[in-house]
Amino acid sequence: MKIGILGASGAVGRQMIQCLEERELPITEIRFFGFGSVGQEITFKDRRYKIEKPFFTGLDVILGAVSSDIAKGYITDIKASGALFIDNSSAFRHDAEVPLVIPQINKEDIVNHHGIIANPNCSTIITLMAVQAINKLNPVTAINAVTYQAVSGAGAKGLEELNAETVAFCQDGKVERKSDVFNYPILFNCIPQIGDLGSDGYTSEELKMEKEARKIMHIADLKVNCTCVRVPVARSHSIAVTVYTKDRLELTQVEAAFSNSEGLIYLKNDLPMPLVASNRDEVFVGRLRKDRIFANGITFFVCGDQIRKGAATNAIEILEHFLKL
Amino acid sequence: MKIGILGASGAVGRQMIQCLEERELPITEIRFFGFGSVGQEITFKDRRYKIEKPFFTGLDVILGAVSSDIAKGYITDIKASGALFIDNSSAFRHDAEVPLVIPQINKEDIVNHHGIIANPNCSTIITLMAVQAINKLNPVTAINAVTYQAVSGAGAKGLEELNAETVAFCQDGKVERKSDVFNYPILFNCIPQIGDLGSDGYTSEELKMEKEARKIMHIADLKVNCTCVRVPVARSHSIAVTVYTKDRLELTQVEAAFSNSEGLIYLKNDLPMPLVASNRDEVFVGRLRKDRIFANGITFFVCGDQIRKGAATNAIEILEHFLKL
Repeated sequence: MKIGILGASGAVGRQMIQCLEERELPITEIRFFGFGSVGQEITFKDRRYKIEKPFFTGLDVILGAVSSDIAKGYITDIKASGALFIDNSSAFRHDAEVPLVIPQINKEDIVNHHGIIANPNCSTIITLMAVQAINKLNPVTAINAVTYQAVSGAGAKGLEELNAETVAFCQDGKVERKSDVFNYPILFNCIPQIGDLGSDGYTSEELKMEKEARKIMHIADLKVNCTCVRVPVARSHSIAVTVYTKDRLELTQVEAAFSNSEGLIYLKNDLPMPLVASNRDEVFVGRLRKDRIFANGITFFVCGDQIRKGAATNAIEILEHFLKL
Repeated sequence: MKIGILGASGAVGRQMIQCLEERELPITEIRFFGFGSVGQEITFKDRRYKIEKPFFTGLDVILGAVSSDIAKGYITDIKASGALFIDNSSAFRHDAEVPLVIPQINKEDIVNHHGIIANPNCSTIITLMAVQAINKLNPVTAINAVTYQAVSGAGAKGLEELNAETVAFCQDGKVERKSDVFNYPILFNCIPQIGDLGSDGYTSEELKMEKEARKIMHIADLKVNCTCVRVPVARSHSIAVTVYTKDRLELTQVEAAFSNSEGLIYLKNDLPMPLVASNRDEVFVGRLRKDRIFANGITFFVCGDQIRKGAATNAIEILEHFLKL
């Protein structure tokens, strides 16, 4: 398999490279594509490579770790090359011909690709990894999700901003913005807006979860109420979730489902936290309890590394399942 | 009025002193009580005082800024002194003879005091300041609340811990605990447990909001589903809230109610954040929108300084209303 990574020097691109190094894939050739980073060196399995301008001829698979606009800009070239495009951006997630896949949930959708397979939003992946375990027990009708999203969800520059603000605080005791990655200082703050705000009061990020969950879980009328908040965490998104099912479930059933779900680690006596989940491919779930308002509600806290399972790991798991077709 | 502050050197005690300096109360004598801090100096309105061992004779009012255990330990002495005790701890909040008061909601309960008036939990106060505006429009039946709680909610030592971890990170690039205030590092982390964990999966902190809200709002069957999470924020708690009402409300009604509520600032075009709310007596609410799951649900984000309105300011507002009786 000849593979290329589009956007190799970003946070997700670099994580894709690390994930490919950790796993055994039949790679015979690998190429790295970038823009401002062209000419920079990348080490992959002890060999050095240079980041090239995007040029896709001769490749079988391209992993996309770029923005929606850039993905859209290159899609004609990618299609012409005949390579499969596994895209981490939101550009094609809702195209009818593009499967949107979390392999642990809907790997059977991969076969219907038409040259593009889309990777879902990071918070969506982490939340649904736990929600799907419940959905297998009894149909999920709605999800209330409140997020604690890490700065690296905004890319490598988000992490640089948090670090820069932290260093400045240690020097002068003040909290102040150092770049325009976020609209407000993020150190010691919570910013309850990610993405653009619509006329209905929801942000683009908040609406993604419902739209994507419907497609991934194949539940056309699933309702999702979501609040997305940026917090001063370097890495790993956390989500406080309440799931509503058609019928009432017992906690012991949910515990068993969480414990037996591939890629999910149930913490009965410990806490899912960024500190625990960071740099792990699994999603961590805990604080399981019954909703106190609705008899058919289950409440829990879930945490996952949004650069790994929320992006790079999920894309490479899609590739692994594609190769089994 | 002769007034004493029990626990004058803690985070809440120091804030009470500052609030008393900012406001016009008929104080003829003030005394400051502590334990490990006995002998330390405190400046109040340009005069210097020494922190004394607790001794209540001759006082009219005592503001309590100590733990439940200490409050319970001194209550016999306080009662014997004849002074009114306005207590910030959870020691007496659910005693039948003790009013639990947020003046903007139930100041009429103050008259029924029997020598003690209790100040509610900080997250409860901040959340209910917004919820009550809706409850005046239409009866609130349930609240789903997910918190982002600042480290100073664990007292001055919580803030010291965050600062110590921040300085250590700048020195050696590592995130590590510097004291035992929290069970895990808090810098760049989220800890989804505050208080002890019960057999039903809820923490003591999470159950406070339902029990206290029922008493403050006089709604015996109010249901509250709460998730409490400690975040690396120095000061001010944030809460993502969904409120369910008996009947469906329009957002314009809620906007008007938020805008016209004393002590509440509605941000239509800006975000309620710790950065905005810190060191302010008002509670900030925004991100108002309809719940996407239930037709009778209203979703919003609220943020308030938990040392001011969540503790010291509320206690002193109780005192101000008591003086008007």
